[in-house]
Amino acid sequence: MIVVVLAAALGGLAFGQAENWFPSRWGAADQRGAANRLTPAKVLEAKNFITTGNVYQLGRTYESAMPIFGTRHFSLRIPQAFGPLGSNKMIYHDEVVSGELGQIGTQFDGLGHIGIGDLFYNGNDRKDFAKAEGLQKLGVENVGAIATRGVLVDVAAFKGVARLDGGYEITLADFEGALRKQGTEIHAGDVVLVHTGWGSLWMVDNAKFGASAPGIGLAAAQYLVDHEIVMVGADTWSMEVVPNPNPELQFPVHQLLIPRNGIYIFENLATEELARNRVYEFAFFFAPLKLKGATGSPGNPLAIR
Amino acid sequence: MIVVVLAAALGGLAFGQAENWFPSRWGAADQRGAANRLTPAKVLEAKNFITTGNVYQLGRTYESAMPIFGTRHFSLRIPQAFGPLGSNKMIYHDEVVSGELGQIGTQFDGLGHIGIGDLFYNGNDRKDFAKAEGLQKLGVENVGAIATRGVLVDVAAFKGVARLDGGYEITLADFEGALRKQGTEIHAGDVVLVHTGWGSLWMVDNAKFGASAPGIGLAAAQYLVDHEIVMVGADTWSMEVVPNPNPELQFPVHQLLIPRNGIYIFENLATEELARNRVYEFAFFFAPLKLKGATGSPGNPLAIR
Amino acid sequence: MIVVVLAAALGGLAFGQAENWFPSRWGAADQRGAANRLTPAKVLEAKNFITTGNVYQLGRTYESAMPIFGTRHFSLRIPQAFGPLGSNKMIYHDEVVSGELGQIGTQFDGLGHIGIGDLFYNGNDRKDFAKAEGLQKLGVENVGAIATRGVLVDVAAFKGVARLDGGYEITLADFEGALRKQGTEIHAGDVVLVHTGWGSLWMVDNAKFGASAPGIGLAAAQYLVDHEIVMVGADTWSMEVVPNPNPELQFPVHQLLIPRNGIYIFENLATEELARNRVYEFAFFFAPLKLKGATGSPGNPLAIR
Amino acid sequence: MIVVVLAAALGGLAFGQAENWFPSRWGAADQRGAANRLTPAKVLEAKNFITTGNVYQLGRTYESAMPIFGTRHFSLRIPQAFGPLGSNKMIYHDEVVSGELGQIGTQFDGLGHIGIGDLFYNGNDRKDFAKAEGLQKLGVENVGAIATRGVLVDVAAFKGVARLDGGYEITLADFEGALRKQGTEIHAGDVVLVHTGWGSLWMVDNAKFGASAPGIGLAAAQYLVDHEIVMVGADTWSMEVVPNPNPELQFPVHQLLIPRNGIYIFENLATEELARNRVYEFAFFFAPLKLKGATGSPGNPLAIR
Repeated sequence: MIVVVLAAALGGLAFGQAENWFPSRWGAADQRGAANRLTPAKVLEAKNFITTGNVYQLGRTYESAMPIFGTRHFSLRIPQAFGPLGSNKMIYHDEVVSGELGQIGTQFDGLGHIGIGDLFYNGNDRKDFAKAEGLQKLGVENVGAIATRGVLVDVAAFKGVARLDGGYEITLADFEGALRKQGTEIHAGDVVLVHTGWGSLWMVDNAKFGASAPGIGLAAAQYLVDHEIVMVGADTWSMEVVPNPNPELQFPVHQLLIPRNGIYIFENLATEELARNRVYEFAFFFAPLKLKGATGSPGNPLAIR
Repeated sequence: MIVVVLAAALGGLAFGQAENWFPSRWGAADQRGAANRLTPAKVLEAKNFITTGNVYQLGRTYESAMPIFGTRHFSLRIPQAFGPLGSNKMIYHDEVVSGELGQIGTQFDGLGHIGIGDLFYNGNDRKDFAKAEGLQKLGVENVGAIATRGVLVDVAAFKGVARLDGGYEITLADFEGALRKQGTEIHAGDVVLVHTGWGSLWMVDNAKFGASAPGIGLAAAQYLVDHEIVMVGADTWSMEVVPNPNPELQFPVHQLLIPRNGIYIFENLATEELARNRVYEFAFFFAPLKLKGATGSPGNPLAIR
Repeated sequence: MIVVVLAAALGGLAFGQAENWFPSRWGAADQRGAANRLTPAKVLEAKNFITTGNVYQLGRTYESAMPIFGTRHFSLRIPQAFGPLGSNKMIYHDEVVSGELGQIGTQFDGLGHIGIGDLFYNGNDRKDFAKAEGLQKLGVENVGAIATRGVLVDVAAFKGVARLDGGYEITLADFEGALRKQGTEIHAGDVVLVHTGWGSLWMVDNAKFGASAPGIGLAAAQYLVDHEIVMVGADTWSMEVVPNPNPELQFPVHQLLIPRNGIYIFENLATEELARNRVYEFAFFFAPLKLKGATGSPGNPLAIR
Repeated sequence: MIVVVLAAALGGLAFGQAENWFPSRWGAADQRGAANRLTPAKVLEAKNFITTGNVYQLGRTYESAMPIFGTRHFSLRIPQAFGPLGSNKMIYHDEVVSGELGQIGTQFDGLGHIGIGDLFYNGNDRKDFAKAEGLQKLGVENVGAIATRGVLVDVAAFKGVARLDGGYEITLADFEGALRKQGTEIHAGDVVLVHTGWGSLWMVDNAKFGASAPGIGLAAAQYLVDHEIVMVGADTWSMEVVPNPNPELQFPVHQLLIPRNGIYIFENLATEELARNRVYEFAFFFAPLKLKGATGSPGNPLAIR
């Protein structure tokens, strides 16, 4: 009954698991979702892309002036130095940081981040696990390392623009077209990064950056579900198209991916260098900070060729 | 003159660069220190250790009950959920986190962390770069990715114990002995991790864990300097021996490595699985969070075989 | 039905409003509770106690080493100085603070702090007003100034001890006896402070301080309800007796006072000087910080004679 | 020599204490400055203004959307509820707050806030007392209660405007004229509040509010010094005129008052109701939060008639 309502809510699309989105395919107790697709074989597949030793950092800089959603914040301060200590005059600085750490700047969304009504991945009801001191299930500490093949899909290049427009839905045709143009396939267990060019607004026009975003819609997202990926990222704050073309829907792609399919999302990635260098396949390395009971993690993932 | 005082302060040891610790060997303007030793060739060297696809996470869990130095803190809270939004009943959680983020739990020490009197790496005077809103030089955002060969030195195994004692100085003989026993060499550009067994006290006896630590002293540290490594880590909060056998010295190894030689330190690493599996050489992947102007970074580095 | 359950839960006591605890006596829309009892006449009544001009600060010092409940925290850091600016070499410090500010140290409990199941003051269901960015009703910014007659009830003196024992319930007989001994009456609109001596453990034996507390039980609390006070405070972290003599009950006095009767609570007050000087009646001045949507406020209230 | 430089830096004005600004008139060890002028007699003087029992709250609401200086921040979040506990279904909320607490919103400036070069009140050098974990001298916890006569000086009314212009310096003639018009005198030990009307921009046009401010200049400030007040407040973020008419000076009034004369400043006060009701003399009550080692305090001070 819940399922029927959701299917309707998600715009009438026939999702693969629509009637049956929990228990998850990894069992009713699973807390890792698509991270279960990560295997030694995927590591070895990834390794083979490392041929030149070039390393791309995909994380953006965390600073208080960066685009931040709503009333979230990021604050960093350097306190007075400690010391000098000892005859060797040891002195040190540290930093105090506060913020919605898993959900500001470059951010990895865990399975406890997004729900459909009160239900999260594997049908977990938030009243049962969302506690003040941390999520008691689905915390980001369960994810583990993501070392696998990475694929960049440069949709901006496919559409012949430097930057897709805000609110532009990357259709399934766009997505498949871009892959075809690049000659890239998506494999089970991959990490997929979508380059939209929207990231060029970061710290340049923050208001425009945050007001909308190009991104995949439900159809392209379903394609990723069907191809059994682990994670999808983009150079936007939302990864998916915002606003959704269906004005009744709010972040439906997040719901399709995270609670329904256990697929992770990574936002505000710096994909521009990969795009510029046409690096469409690479070894991808990331592990969330083990923030106990957190919904996500900041990060600086690596793409290596 | 300063240099003479420092050499004396550091216990009279003849350091390679004692008379001349700045400008750095990478020039007076350098902010990356030993990260300059990271090259595509080191990435390719590292890649060759990936033969089974086994991934080891080296980061510990961040939680308020973990051992924390002095009056630093770590707080995480899950606010009330946002939503539901839209007809699809989108709901989401995030987390508010505060703490001395680069200097609690598993932590990477950048070049702005440690000084000798007022002087930091490359002779930078803290009054010139240590500003409230972030370090204006030597911030951790300058480090970049660390993708290189990693070496574990299991000194506990060499000494035939599960855990070295607090305050035990790993001598040069210990260090070389452990390497010999393992059949491992250290190469320029490597990351070196020291397993002491002290991490077994983490979340088991936090008071004991924090009261002292086994670790390398100045002689073993000089060996690492001479071997031109990039970073040294350990399963203790201090990496180096605490208290130092010379009671007048406070964290002299930090000074030798960070300001004098631009070599990074990683503390509170989870090295126990590597030790248990006798994984002494591996591909190491880590990139600090680009926390603008920070002294360090939390992390969950990866060792891959 | 809810009401019956609650009456049972609260130990079978016959509360004045047991069958009818909402709407409040100040109407269904009220958000200020017993603060409605504060009138210009009470200010003038209070004023008349100011005869010597002696001012007592009732707030304790906020510092990270103070007793703190559970995993709450208090952190204060002085960042690097800003400046110098201008030819006049203006320089300044500020501080970064984080913590559960309305609920650490000396703390004023507002109406959004305590519920009975999901219901708060005036029957407000928490799902309707407890939002991540602040309570949308019952926030502490609604309380306003509390300038009224204050009464100290020195129960420790009445019992002939410097400090009541942890877990000691101040009975109605104790309470009335202490008032009689002092020759003090309680008036409608008063603030009542209970001196137990427990505050002598503050920063002396924090573990003992926080493990239990002497305090009023339901009977003495009902007496305060019947006397139509505005607020009751004490020199303990809980104000009420902990653990409650009825082991099934957790902080039932909080529930009787706050949601059921709109009466405020102030904890960790420094009452010792008032007690030492036998200041049993005084002018009381406090206004919560207008922290929008907060459950409480830190404070340094004043008692003036 | 230092003194000569400072006198020059402060624009060549002949200050009363120019050659001799420390030790302070309350001795070289004093940490309370003009709070030493607070006496029981001042409390009794204040009391006599309480004739109607009307209470004015002078604190504004703290919320993330309020005007905030530079990169300071204010964050408040309501975590998930705790509980239900016990058979009585006790449930509670608290809040996590972070921010530059003594220096955001309605804020009281203590003696550790402002320096002249490296020297603070009583000639304290910041290197000696400004430590990461809190100021070791001049912390706001030393101030104590401020219960005294308060005076409102409605300069906007004197100038016949609802709001003075940003950057308008309230001259000595303005100040004396406004006092004369009101028939108000300033006494030693008073708190003086200046109404400029600038507060009407609060949360209405935050950008304009923060870009400049009307306020007293050095001459009117010297008048307050000469009249031996305890504190001066205003309905602006800076209290003093910004920018200063002398473009080389940055916040010189802060320096004249705080380090040189130990006189406190209170910013972002809600003075509009006092002005509207022509309440020019009143009893003033405030005590800073005892934030150990802080430079200031948030607050909600009271003016009572």
